[in-house]
Amino acid sequence: MSRIAYVNGRYVRAAEAGISIDDRAAYFGDGVYEGVQIKGGRLIDEPRHLDRLGRSLAALRMSWPMGEAALRGVLREVVRRNRVSDGFLYLQISRGVARRDHGFPKASVRSSLTVTAKSLDPRINEAKAARGVKVITVADQRWARPDIKTLNLLPNVLAKQAARDRGAEEAWMVDGLGLITEGASTNAWIVTLRGALVTREADQSILSGVTRKTLIDVAAALGLELEIRPFSVGEVFLAREAFYSSASTVVIPVVEIDGRVIGDGRPGQIALALRRRFHDFAASH
Amino acid sequence: MSRIAYVNGRYVRAAEAGISIDDRAAYFGDGVYEGVQIKGGRLIDEPRHLDRLGRSLAALRMSWPMGEAALRGVLREVVRRNRVSDGFLYLQISRGVARRDHGFPKASVRSSLTVTAKSLDPRINEAKAARGVKVITVADQRWARPDIKTLNLLPNVLAKQAARDRGAEEAWMVDGLGLITEGASTNAWIVTLRGALVTREADQSILSGVTRKTLIDVAAALGLELEIRPFSVGEVFLAREAFYSSASTVVIPVVEIDGRVIGDGRPGQIALALRRRFHDFAASH
Repeated sequence: MSRIAYVNGRYVRAAEAGISIDDRAAYFGDGVYEGVQIKGGRLIDEPRHLDRLGRSLAALRMSWPMGEAALRGVLREVVRRNRVSDGFLYLQISRGVARRDHGFPKASVRSSLTVTAKSLDPRINEAKAARGVKVITVADQRWARPDIKTLNLLPNVLAKQAARDRGAEEAWMVDGLGLITEGASTNAWIVTLRGALVTREADQSILSGVTRKTLIDVAAALGLELEIRPFSVGEVFLAREAFYSSASTVVIPVVEIDGRVIGDGRPGQIALALRRRFHDFAASH
Repeated sequence: MSRIAYVNGRYVRAAEAGISIDDRAAYFGDGVYEGVQIKGGRLIDEPRHLDRLGRSLAALRMSWPMGEAALRGVLREVVRRNRVSDGFLYLQISRGVARRDHGFPKASVRSSLTVTAKSLDPRINEAKAARGVKVITVADQRWARPDIKTLNLLPNVLAKQAARDRGAEEAWMVDGLGLITEGASTNAWIVTLRGALVTREADQSILSGVTRKTLIDVAAALGLELEIRPFSVGEVFLAREAFYSSASTVVIPVVEIDGRVIGDGRPGQIALALRRRFHDFAASH
């Protein structure tokens, strides 16, 4: 089945869907995005994704392309037209189409909206979760505002590719203090030897992951001890468990980092428990 | 006259020219670009622009979309079809079109090439040069590799807009040490009280401006004393002259920074001399 995309007011075959060469997404990466898990045809944690989208737009002084209710309607229609039961929805908003000029275009230029959805076989992530994955560390080379979910993703692209080149699934980025910020497209977590769950505060140094936030709710419900603080690469080496989270993967246990085995080298029990219980706590409409 | 763009093998009306929604330029800003001045129908400093393009591509492990001779032919054809005598040529290469995934696409995916050209009335920059412009300073928020000319330009967009909001023409970015790196889309220069020309070294902290490089040749020919080193905002306040350089503007004198008058508040003589002599030294084919 060919994919159907929503592009600026029309539902079109994705293979033929285009944006203007003058779209500011292409010239400057001047836009924001969200990725939302689809499960049983439903959009997981949609309110939190739309909240964050609003914060990203405001931070860049961009406007919504349409009202929130209308946008929610478009998201549902894209899921429906692509007949996605389990998969991933992607939405992107750019500052619009205008002759190339760094400064913002005039106020009459409307933001551009693109929405796509694809099916993903849930067994792929289940298999990864069952055996655990490898991560590497790379220097965090990003700009000063990685908390905004923008299209300026080149450092993330290079980090992810560095991981692939070394046979790993993900790259965790390390700041100037030797502390892990987050993954190329995931948030980073560990479980200490004494059983505390640790993840970095969602300040300006990382993206405030929607799945991360819901996992904090799950951890509270499970009575887990939670420490919201940064951790070093050295602390990961000594951790009982490590894992990452994202909307598309939920929770994936990490069993090796930079070639060193974590814990007993098998997926951690706390990671797997969080993964199992996640959808009991995520909003699903 | 409607603009004509070259997009992936075809010459098309720019207003209708599109790229795929799956182009990595739009998803990740995963691409590089060059902007070249056109004067008398010729591409100014083309060899240095193509050299830098090659360095940008290599730094991101991207491939040329075609051989250099063929690319030069396309650039000329875009200038010709748009009948540009004085203006600006823009060329952009992305890593190509592929389903959204941070890691590089498979090797068979070809890079995308877009080329446009527009006429600019040279009197606009002449007028700016004659009266001088205002600049402001902003924190340099960019990633760790601003020396690569990539499409991840959001910090530059925000800096330029901050300048416009304050009635200025350009924003100079300041690093954590209080030293100016470069402008949102220009290189920064001063002339000290004792007459030395100062501009920052083109290391990993700034883009190696093509016009900057040619101006260094001009300065040498004019027998000017040159200091290749960073300078602080405080030093700009005390400078005799300040100016910026770029391919589209060549040299524009700066007469005010953050509301403080520079020198006697009029365009500097050294800046204007460099501007006048620039085209005697730039390669023009």
